Amino acid sequence: MKELATGAMKPIVVRKVNAHLSAPFADVVSVEEPLEIRIDYRDGTERIQKSISVTMRTPGNDLDLALGFLFTEGIIASYRDIKSLRHVGQCARQKKNVVQVDFVDDAIPRLHQSERNFYTTSSCGVCGKSSIDSIKTVSPFQEQEKPPLKLHKEILCQLRENLRTAQAGFAATGGIHASGLFTPAGELVCLREDVGRHNALDKLIGDALTNNTLPLNRHLLLLSGRASFELIQKAAMAGITIVIAIGAPSSLAVELAEELDITLIGFLKGDSFNIYHQSETVLLN
Amino acid sequence: MKELATGAMKPIVVRKVNAHLSAPFADVVSVEEPLEIRIDYRDGTERIQKSISVTMRTPGNDLDLALGFLFTEGIIASYRDIKSLRHVGQCARQKKNVVQVDFVDDAIPRLHQSERNFYTTSSCGVCGKSSIDSIKTVSPFQEQEKPPLKLHKEILCQLRENLRTAQAGFAATGGIHASGLFTPAGELVCLREDVGRHNALDKLIGDALTNNTLPLNRHLLLLSGRASFELIQKAAMAGITIVIAIGAPSSLAVELAEELDITLIGFLKGDSFNIYHQSETVLLN
Repeated sequence: MKELATGAMKPIVVRKVNAHLSAPFADVVSVEEPLEIRIDYRDGTERIQKSISVTMRTPGNDLDLALGFLFTEGIIASYRDIKSLRHVGQCARQKKNVVQVDFVDDAIPRLHQSERNFYTTSSCGVCGKSSIDSIKTVSPFQEQEKPPLKLHKEILCQLRENLRTAQAGFAATGGIHASGLFTPAGELVCLREDVGRHNALDKLIGDALTNNTLPLNRHLLLLSGRASFELIQKAAMAGITIVIAIGAPSSLAVELAEELDITLIGFLKGDSFNIYHQSETVLLN
Repeated sequence: MKELATGAMKPIVVRKVNAHLSAPFADVVSVEEPLEIRIDYRDGTERIQKSISVTMRTPGNDLDLALGFLFTEGIIASYRDIKSLRHVGQCARQKKNVVQVDFVDDAIPRLHQSERNFYTTSSCGVCGKSSIDSIKTVSPFQEQEKPPLKLHKEILCQLRENLRTAQAGFAATGGIHASGLFTPAGELVCLREDVGRHNALDKLIGDALTNNTLPLNRHLLLLSGRASFELIQKAAMAGITIVIAIGAPSSLAVELAEELDITLIGFLKGDSFNIYHQSETVLLN
């Protein structure tokens, strides 16, 4: 399921204006195109095919994106649920933007789980607390023992630079999100870029699922932007226990991290950062 | 439908680390909570009630958010479709996070329109081109004459500062998106903040719908972050003809702007910016 990230950037001509000039300039922008995810599974004696999501994404690693999405949304429990996945379509253009996932005969997609996107399950209704509770129920790795990871401050402070160095798309377009998976020694293991931050993380987790490296509980996840509930939820589904964001976390991201004992760091810049949960993970000396 | 943005920030204690210190610090984060949007309409002789969306948002201006969402997704064509809208729920917690929208008897929600989120309509399938075509079909203001707006470079270069000055949430949390509506003279008309960039814009457009100021074709829209397809789509639905982003646009945002003749400016910083479409809108002298 390795794919080249072809078509991730598109050349355009812009008019660049500053104090000294106003002139045409050959530039590149990040490509954004819709991806439809279809599933095909057996229900009793018949096979059912349905479209379950259309997301705006940057082309490349589409199969990983589809797989990661199905897993982090709780629709599949493991890679063993999948018989095959591939681009499908009646014409070349359609083929670029539709991925079909065929389930093995005895696997049923847990669509009910994902219908409300983890945002509500309790009879009381919609709220942050019920959203958090639903993750606890669905995440396959919550009950497992987690290896006690520690992270040296010096290494933490280099991660942002390591991510940027590896981020080809950002350097070129200035307009793409990234999710990076690192070892505690600061070595980059996997990097995925996308115009949608949730897609970048789904691609990364889809890759891990394909390579059978879940749970990712011996690695650090670095997010290029802000940390929302949705990103911590996806990280939790993959068993990730340390999440570092270059931007700010939201209130519900912090609450979910506290509830699931995920180390959460934000505002990583130069040699400064904020620790929102589990400050003992970071070794200062 | 004026509401105070209460509960938009939450105080927390973080551990702040830099070269000189590692200490607890009283901070605030942007609040993120789910909002469920329910609609209630008449179909033949019976009234139907259904949940059509759960979005993670920052509490505040929830009614405008629901209204703006219904309009920019093409589910309602005008404010006249709505009989009433209000928070509903069986307990206090639920009441904060559910908005119910009652349609007048002869208004039918155009759910088919929104089912695929503008991402696909053509029989050929899913692609950027079909996404753009669907906006053209649905947007109520595309056929109207647009007043020829011009924007002075000096005013453009002040907008970012004007937005930041007004952005209480960003100043406090560093973690919230904003949409700002300005006159061509640079005067701020409306500002909405949210952890989700699409929500900030839906709140702004919902406010305009309530106050009967659509189409917004005599104003400029300033986005605090990047410009994706979805944001240009929502702007187009409201008749906005000038969109300025502080961050980068995506390929499909540029294509949509070209197709609908929307002036698109990106990377606004200090006295420099890039013009992606309709550079004649900006007066350099």
